[in-house]
Amino acid sequence: MRILIIGGHGTIGKKVSAHFSEDNEVLIAGRTNGDFLVDIEDISSISKMFEKTGQLDAIICIAGEAKWANFNDLSEDDFHIGLNSKLMGQVNLVRLGQNVLNPKGSITLTTGILADDPVVMTTSAAMVNGGIHSFVQAVALELENEIRVNAVSSGMVEDAYEKYKDYFPGHNPIPMKKVVNGYVRSVNGKGNGEVIRIYD
Amino acid sequence: MRILIIGGHGTIGKKVSAHFSEDNEVLIAGRTNGDFLVDIEDISSISKMFEKTGQLDAIICIAGEAKWANFNDLSEDDFHIGLNSKLMGQVNLVRLGQNVLNPKGSITLTTGILADDPVVMTTSAAMVNGGIHSFVQAVALELENEIRVNAVSSGMVEDAYEKYKDYFPGHNPIPMKKVVNGYVRSVNGKGNGEVIRIYD
Repeated sequence: MRILIIGGHGTIGKKVSAHFSEDNEVLIAGRTNGDFLVDIEDISSISKMFEKTGQLDAIICIAGEAKWANFNDLSEDDFHIGLNSKLMGQVNLVRLGQNVLNPKGSITLTTGILADDPVVMTTSAAMVNGGIHSFVQAVALELENEIRVNAVSSGMVEDAYEKYKDYFPGHNPIPMKKVVNGYVRSVNGKGNGEVIRIYD
Repeated sequence: MRILIIGGHGTIGKKVSAHFSEDNEVLIAGRTNGDFLVDIEDISSISKMFEKTGQLDAIICIAGEAKWANFNDLSEDDFHIGLNSKLMGQVNLVRLGQNVLNPKGSITLTTGILADDPVVMTTSAAMVNGGIHSFVQAVALELENEIRVNAVSSGMVEDAYEKYKDYFPGHNPIPMKKVVNGYVRSVNGKGNGEVIRIYD
């Protein structure tokens, strides 16, 4: 398969890229490095990326940000960071990505446990993740050419645990192998419109 | 109690307003009529409304819109209608509304079954509803003065069923009495951070 991984050099992305590279042609896109540079907040940047990638069998997005802060410290503009980046960025990847996917191709988005089990300072991040969960279920009803869309929603991943554990009291770190398997399930399985939850 | 109902003259709102008016002081806000005019897309309009309402014991929002259309017919601007109105409109009601609520007051937002069980043409509407579900869980971790926030998520309501039933194949209409009870549960109960699902 020919697989594009947006955010393929990130904490999760590099493990996912390493796995799929074993048996597939993997192209990596990122904001600062990769085979293609892309800023998913900007739909024209996404469009230019897909002009260069050519036809694909799978698109995986492990990118997009949202601002973490106490609710009363978040401005309206702060909320729009998450809406424009992690939420509409991933929606726009589906809007444009469907056109470069071969029939039976797949798109895998990334959310996280905050959608279902938030912690303090995540009103924006949780909201964005929850929006994508519902979006994935809805868009799966409409895409054509047997193109599938899923989201991988993992708990705090092992490789980020030391840095973020104080924000996630009592959360168990998710082994990277299990996180990678969420993407494998989406890309190599037949599920469509699924939120693949990897919680512990 | 002194209760503000935004959208209190709408299909659901008028039944909710009628119920709470039996035993409470109910103030109604709406885009075109009511005790206060408000456009929840515009945070300055929300701010002006709360300058006029004075202190409240409960805020109920049954307002906000999102565009319905086939996924491939929705523009990026179309998605932003829902993000600015039903999503950030309700977020901003919590941001500003907490300041006019008495201790132990409550805020009740409105979503809908599409968050969990979407139908065709609802990628934007489902996404917005799902975002609010996660937001409500997250913000409940942070509000002070024992202020509670919940969302009522109903299936297709009986009073809108004839108009919309073709969009909801096989969905069972929800009796208005049950819908009203969702708001009663939020306002008069003790639940916080709950998504009150009224599905059948």
